[in-house]
Amino acid sequence: MRNVKIIVSYDGSNYSGWQRQKNTRETIQEKLEDVLSKFHKEPGKIYGASRTDAGVHAKGQVFNFDLKVDIPLNRLPQAFNSELPNDIVCLDAEYISDEFHSRYDAEAKKYIYRIDNNLYRDVFMRKYAYHIYMDLDLTAMSRSIECLIGKHDFSAFRAKGCRSKEPVKNIYKAEFYEESHNIYALEIIGSGFLYNMMRIIAGTVIEIGKKKRRYDDMKKVLKSKCRNNAGFTAPAKGLTLKEIYYPING
Amino acid sequence: MRNVKIIVSYDGSNYSGWQRQKNTRETIQEKLEDVLSKFHKEPGKIYGASRTDAGVHAKGQVFNFDLKVDIPLNRLPQAFNSELPNDIVCLDAEYISDEFHSRYDAEAKKYIYRIDNNLYRDVFMRKYAYHIYMDLDLTAMSRSIECLIGKHDFSAFRAKGCRSKEPVKNIYKAEFYEESHNIYALEIIGSGFLYNMMRIIAGTVIEIGKKKRRYDDMKKVLKSKCRNNAGFTAPAKGLTLKEIYYPING
Repeated sequence: MRNVKIIVSYDGSNYSGWQRQKNTRETIQEKLEDVLSKFHKEPGKIYGASRTDAGVHAKGQVFNFDLKVDIPLNRLPQAFNSELPNDIVCLDAEYISDEFHSRYDAEAKKYIYRIDNNLYRDVFMRKYAYHIYMDLDLTAMSRSIECLIGKHDFSAFRAKGCRSKEPVKNIYKAEFYEESHNIYALEIIGSGFLYNMMRIIAGTVIEIGKKKRRYDDMKKVLKSKCRNNAGFTAPAKGLTLKEIYYPING
Repeated sequence: MRNVKIIVSYDGSNYSGWQRQKNTRETIQEKLEDVLSKFHKEPGKIYGASRTDAGVHAKGQVFNFDLKVDIPLNRLPQAFNSELPNDIVCLDAEYISDEFHSRYDAEAKKYIYRIDNNLYRDVFMRKYAYHIYMDLDLTAMSRSIECLIGKHDFSAFRAKGCRSKEPVKNIYKAEFYEESHNIYALEIIGSGFLYNMMRIIAGTVIEIGKKKRRYDDMKKVLKSKCRNNAGFTAPAKGLTLKEIYYPING
């Protein structure tokens, strides 16, 4: 029996998010555990790094599990993929120390929030970006996120129902750039993210872009530590979990 | 009554192609004519520039039609979009001379064929690129298409059933490049394209990439004017009609 770490990507459009739950549409965890159960011929259990919400996508989600059957590591991603629906794709598998836990050992995460600022939406990005047809103040949007870098209490960007005990997170990188023609990306790398934190930051940045707020409003909202002062929760479909970082020997 | 030219984009995944036909799934033309019929309160007819096949996408397809009702030009794309399914998006509308016909007046077309060469497929490109996991000889692929530039008889890259009278086409541009991480694009601008020509060229380029053929085989195939010498017809989903060019005052 070996602890295995897998990197998985998915289009979250048709799922109720990562976490297995009752009385909802299907979840990513459920789909992956179904495959593992098939391999093990008994119920399989996996541990995900990030509980992405319904409609949120992932390029580099990570999960780990005890592999109880003899499948060569280099065949494991394809073994999963051949049993998975085509909107979930495993990208890499490696053996990892028995103590490794994808969630508790994560040092940082990178999220990207995409905004489609074409006058008429980009049909190929309709599931992966939030469409805003009006002119945006891109300079203000870019300047507004500078204040997020560093160690701060992010309570202002925390949804009700967030169970995290620690609202202080360290933001290592916050950038806003044009990814492709009129598709803008808000990219943030942080030590951790509170519930809906990335989407509430994106919502606040969007309100700044629409000139409903000034760029320096972000700093005031952050300092207030009050959710009511921040912007709306931007739609899930614009959000993608890009990468999860672990200690080199983790 | 005015002749109107509209640029439209669509995700062709769920359609039987552009052209209205009986006994198939829905077509793009049908969806657009349904909207026009609603505007006109009588059956509407549109003229498309290119009859894209089932599963082929478009970023810049063009159609024209007689507009018989009073909708301001700047509201016309949105008037269509609000009635269309979300995988068809009109991008631009303009009045054009009464003689204009989107198909007969087209001077050139740009197509792009996408290959996903990631070991495991890019989940976000699964509908827009053809996945090949094995190593490809990218240099050979790139060199192979140079011979296509200029005026040639493209009978070798013409599917059975092609009704075009003129197999000689002028290729203005043929490029092969990495569009994003391991996603390669074969981009061709030509005066016209025979039935399946772009997909048969792509299939031949892919066979060269897989080293089933040498790069200079393309020239021999072209000169032979014989379909049997060319490669397979690459899958429709990798193909996107990017742009249609008209004379400046067309």
